[in-house]
Amino acid sequence: MNVQFSQRALALKSSAIRELLKITERPEVISFAGGLPSPATFPIEALREATDRLFANKPHAALQYGPTEGYMPLREWVAAQHGVSPTRVMLTTGSQQALDLIGKVLIDPDSPVLVETPTYLGALQAFSLYGPRFVSVPSDEGGVVPEALTPELTKGARFAYILPNFQNPTGRTMDLARRKALIAQAEKLGLPIVEDNPYGDLSYTGDTHPTLLSMAPDSVIYLGSFSKILAPGLRLGYVIAPEAVLFKLGQAKQAADLHTPGFTQRVVFEAVSTGLLDTHIPTIRSLYAAQCAAMMTALDKSMPAGVSWNRPTGGMFTWVTLPTYLDATALFQHSVAQNVAYVPGAPFYANQPETHTLRLSFVTVPEARIHEGIAILGSVIGEQLRAAA
Amino acid sequence: MNVQFSQRALALKSSAIRELLKITERPEVISFAGGLPSPATFPIEALREATDRLFANKPHAALQYGPTEGYMPLREWVAAQHGVSPTRVMLTTGSQQALDLIGKVLIDPDSPVLVETPTYLGALQAFSLYGPRFVSVPSDEGGVVPEALTPELTKGARFAYILPNFQNPTGRTMDLARRKALIAQAEKLGLPIVEDNPYGDLSYTGDTHPTLLSMAPDSVIYLGSFSKILAPGLRLGYVIAPEAVLFKLGQAKQAADLHTPGFTQRVVFEAVSTGLLDTHIPTIRSLYAAQCAAMMTALDKSMPAGVSWNRPTGGMFTWVTLPTYLDATALFQHSVAQNVAYVPGAPFYANQPETHTLRLSFVTVPEARIHEGIAILGSVIGEQLRAAA
Repeated sequence: MNVQFSQRALALKSSAIRELLKITERPEVISFAGGLPSPATFPIEALREATDRLFANKPHAALQYGPTEGYMPLREWVAAQHGVSPTRVMLTTGSQQALDLIGKVLIDPDSPVLVETPTYLGALQAFSLYGPRFVSVPSDEGGVVPEALTPELTKGARFAYILPNFQNPTGRTMDLARRKALIAQAEKLGLPIVEDNPYGDLSYTGDTHPTLLSMAPDSVIYLGSFSKILAPGLRLGYVIAPEAVLFKLGQAKQAADLHTPGFTQRVVFEAVSTGLLDTHIPTIRSLYAAQCAAMMTALDKSMPAGVSWNRPTGGMFTWVTLPTYLDATALFQHSVAQNVAYVPGAPFYANQPETHTLRLSFVTVPEARIHEGIAILGSVIGEQLRAAA
Repeated sequence: MNVQFSQRALALKSSAIRELLKITERPEVISFAGGLPSPATFPIEALREATDRLFANKPHAALQYGPTEGYMPLREWVAAQHGVSPTRVMLTTGSQQALDLIGKVLIDPDSPVLVETPTYLGALQAFSLYGPRFVSVPSDEGGVVPEALTPELTKGARFAYILPNFQNPTGRTMDLARRKALIAQAEKLGLPIVEDNPYGDLSYTGDTHPTLLSMAPDSVIYLGSFSKILAPGLRLGYVIAPEAVLFKLGQAKQAADLHTPGFTQRVVFEAVSTGLLDTHIPTIRSLYAAQCAAMMTALDKSMPAGVSWNRPTGGMFTWVTLPTYLDATALFQHSVAQNVAYVPGAPFYANQPETHTLRLSFVTVPEARIHEGIAILGSVIGEQLRAAA
């Protein structure tokens, strides 16, 4: 085919990480690389019952075309969870679609877009198609540093993209004081915040900080997801935004896929409207808390001196920082040769990567294999430290 | 919110037609406006059984994240239908998503894109977000006129967007000779063709012409859909393209929604792999053929002299041409005042609209109501003709 690709298509890089990760699908590999929730948490029976009720009651509407903004009872359910009007809620095909739509309606070529250091890779991919100029906001173990949001740094920025809870990739969380400071700074600057919160319900203790949305509903575009609390294969997420923004997002969504499947929207509504999540989410929290504890114990036991990591209070990931003279991408080859995989940290940086970082997921690997895998990883890192010494 | 929208978002027009059509949802209105398939055709029992099998067998994989290109057994099923390699097939969230992805990877601002006169409104909406310069190719009751595809008209065009079967909005079909001439002309010019074929299976007689894809697999990007042969609320379509193009479409899809729901993909695979469509599609054909016959009888009986229309051999729509001095948008107000709705033709034109045209859908209105509605529409048109005389 004599095809001429668009400039944005030509700029799409083949994801080195995707190639790397193909290796990790071999069954003998202990993989801490995936971003998948544990399938043990999928509420199969509840979803089966929800589907049965759907077929028993009103299957035709679920199978017909529907409104772009989504199935109203589910919009209302989401709105009630967040104390907003249903007119501010749109269901999306995973929250990944909301990232794409936000890029579409808010980013022009070379628009500054503020992101955490590091940040979620999938957001960088989605926004990149619209050609922004990413500005990495200085961040520490508590998330972005609000004082770093100066008028100079944020000039012309379309929005700041923030993951306040158990961030992918680092697992870190913003405390209440920092949330307040961030909101105050954003409101002073007139800076919209895009709050991405797929992991917020996965606090191990159940304690949660208020969402940025609840603190400043008119300054925040909020992204939620059913992927981590029900099942990702349903591809169901949502966006909450002031009506004027939601209207534009809706126009863009209509062109993108008309609407998210009415079938999955109704299955999820049938499931959550029974109160399923009240009993289901605590079971995920318990499992992930135990998995995290196993990972922390294994890291404490097996990591050489000079290696540090985050101790998450929720979510699926931790973030390991090696001595600066080690490169986690180079290390990957050695680790995979020993059948242990992780994700090198570099692709999570919009600008200068800290190449001595890596992400570990701990929710899909059985505890015994966590200990086994981290012991191997620790010894691989130890070897490289000695080789570099 | 102090938000700055992108140029493409600002260019999104509020769809006048969408506002018009809200009126048509009143129950007393006989609406020929919708583009909805008849819910009487949804194979509820087969989908229920497919879902039951899914839950009985391997629900975890259906609920986990999956590959961007889609569920391999369904890719293989689609590939077998079209005699191509599964590596050329990607499942999409409705074929509308394939239109958006094609726009994303093939259209730069001001790129010429060739479209039929008139053409599918949803494609114009999807492509518009990427800022093309639409070139309307001269077309007649047999579709685009291949001889009109001159080097001058097609210069720099990224692709020609073609709906060969029972086109939305006109219901017209390209015959075999014209398909051959179109392919020959496109190959001579090195012009990629995007073939959109959601209605191809809905031939009333069962007779079909070969797809453009089958005639020139390396020159055609093909869009298919399960919306008209199973149910649109599943939002499941697919795109077939040469590997290099599919690779770029896959990268764009990963950023857009990671993948189409694995749940709906597997429900559809479970349904179609039993051979369901062999018996199901003929029932849709029969119903739509009878509905079309009723519409033709009603038009023959009730339309004033000077009004003409297409006699479709498949699909869901016919296209009515009024005397040129009548405006179908102005007429709409009079028609709706009598509780009869249709879609004015103007929005289906990328450039100069023929304002004396309108689209009628005949698949969701019962036969008696078709006769009633068309009698009213005929008398409204008659009044306007007399007023204009």
